[in-house]
Amino acid sequence: MGARSLVVLLFLMLILSFSSAYQGKKKQYKPCKQMVLYFHDVLYNGQNAANATSAIVGAPQWGNLTILADKFHFGNVVVFDDPITLDNNFHSKPVGRAQGMYIYDTKNTFTSWLGFTFVLNSTDFQGTLNFMGADPIMVKTRDITVVSGTGDFFMHRGIATIMTDAFEGEVYFRLRVDIKLYECW
Amino acid sequence: MGARSLVVLLFLMLILSFSSAYQGKKKQYKPCKQMVLYFHDVLYNGQNAANATSAIVGAPQWGNLTILADKFHFGNVVVFDDPITLDNNFHSKPVGRAQGMYIYDTKNTFTSWLGFTFVLNSTDFQGTLNFMGADPIMVKTRDITVVSGTGDFFMHRGIATIMTDAFEGEVYFRLRVDIKLYECW
Amino acid sequence: MGARSLVVLLFLMLILSFSSAYQGKKKQYKPCKQMVLYFHDVLYNGQNAANATSAIVGAPQWGNLTILADKFHFGNVVVFDDPITLDNNFHSKPVGRAQGMYIYDTKNTFTSWLGFTFVLNSTDFQGTLNFMGADPIMVKTRDITVVSGTGDFFMHRGIATIMTDAFEGEVYFRLRVDIKLYECW
Repeated sequence: MGARSLVVLLFLMLILSFSSAYQGKKKQYKPCKQMVLYFHDVLYNGQNAANATSAIVGAPQWGNLTILADKFHFGNVVVFDDPITLDNNFHSKPVGRAQGMYIYDTKNTFTSWLGFTFVLNSTDFQGTLNFMGADPIMVKTRDITVVSGTGDFFMHRGIATIMTDAFEGEVYFRLRVDIKLYECW
Repeated sequence: MGARSLVVLLFLMLILSFSSAYQGKKKQYKPCKQMVLYFHDVLYNGQNAANATSAIVGAPQWGNLTILADKFHFGNVVVFDDPITLDNNFHSKPVGRAQGMYIYDTKNTFTSWLGFTFVLNSTDFQGTLNFMGADPIMVKTRDITVVSGTGDFFMHRGIATIMTDAFEGEVYFRLRVDIKLYECW
Repeated sequence: MGARSLVVLLFLMLILSFSSAYQGKKKQYKPCKQMVLYFHDVLYNGQNAANATSAIVGAPQWGNLTILADKFHFGNVVVFDDPITLDNNFHSKPVGRAQGMYIYDTKNTFTSWLGFTFVLNSTDFQGTLNFMGADPIMVKTRDITVVSGTGDFFMHRGIATIMTDAFEGEVYFRLRVDIKLYECW
């Protein structure tokens, strides 16, 4: 191996050195983890205390705590503890709970603001994932932020594409949550 | 090129190799994206239902839902859907909506806690940015966290320097938001 | 130094180049900053206005604003501005304030959802840290997310292990917060 070959090798390594550092800076645009989960919300309406998984706890002046308010529910604050399932069946064995709140925040369409946590406790996953973001309910799919997590999801970040999978009156809805994590630790 | 020159070159590459890996770890302290936006909040007071963009939805025991409470509004929870504009003119064409909530959370000064989303829908930007943080209102400029985003702001992180740009009684305020993103994807 | 030794050196550097780029991608699992802080919450009960640091501002239909609701306080929203201390003594000089809200969100056990900010203002630290996450109160230690920060904690991320350090009736509790930051800037 002559000095010339060595110089060539050195330049190759130089390029490699740059490109691998670049990999350190640039993140991948395909998820390092992905999973689809469903959660089910049964809103307390004054008559379903046993089954309800959520309750209105804040309302505007024109509202109350058992019926969602006029003007697209603007101002209603709802606290929830909803079962999470692997499929769209309300009666499937839960793999965790979705806990937190949603707020109806628009006067002229159905829009909510979400702040909640998935507390997962299954054979596949042990840990939490925190979510926040705007939810323009009438749009078919909406992206919200997966802020970070703990346990199996320690420090993970990503986005979640949510979809209203079912909607029954003003008592039940089911959300399909496609979690895509782009930063895994 | 002798063996000695090669050894020198190797050491140079060694240093380079370290420093470029360091770039992968160390983030830049100048924003990769920056923009200044304004949003406008008109609080419902029982008489301005048509114009109001926000409403009191929670209050302490000594408060109510049309007048901000005594003790620096401690305990008031406000839900909002405020227009975002490029300049400080309330009548400018909105480029999006600021949606979420603020909470007055101090008994002896004006301080609020913010959790909200910018839903941007303009020729320049399509996407959302989520914010959270403490807002010591009486301080001229305050830094809050830009948690992450979606769309054009997919996975971005940063801080926002906010400033009360106008304040009229307890009905209207305008916030100047200087968004500085330090992690762009 | 012969060509053979150089080749060996080159391979060593090749490995080094990979491993240092790997360091750029892979984050460390030991904290880059760690600190233990305490905060103290005195809930308003209708009779302790002078001392209270928090107040119930939202309740389900079966609740009110001076007594935590039945069913494990499900639906109670509490706003707080609590002193932060370096030790477990309520009377120690505060190094900052914990500001935000907690929500009791489960019907059959004590669980809350947290969204708050540490506003630190001491000789050691100037800046804010934002927290969110589920708090299964009956579990000895719980991990929540440190979303990000400002000032000395500009863009930092991590987790916090929280522990109920004291609990007196439904008026006072003290939380021990072990903040572990894994991404420092």
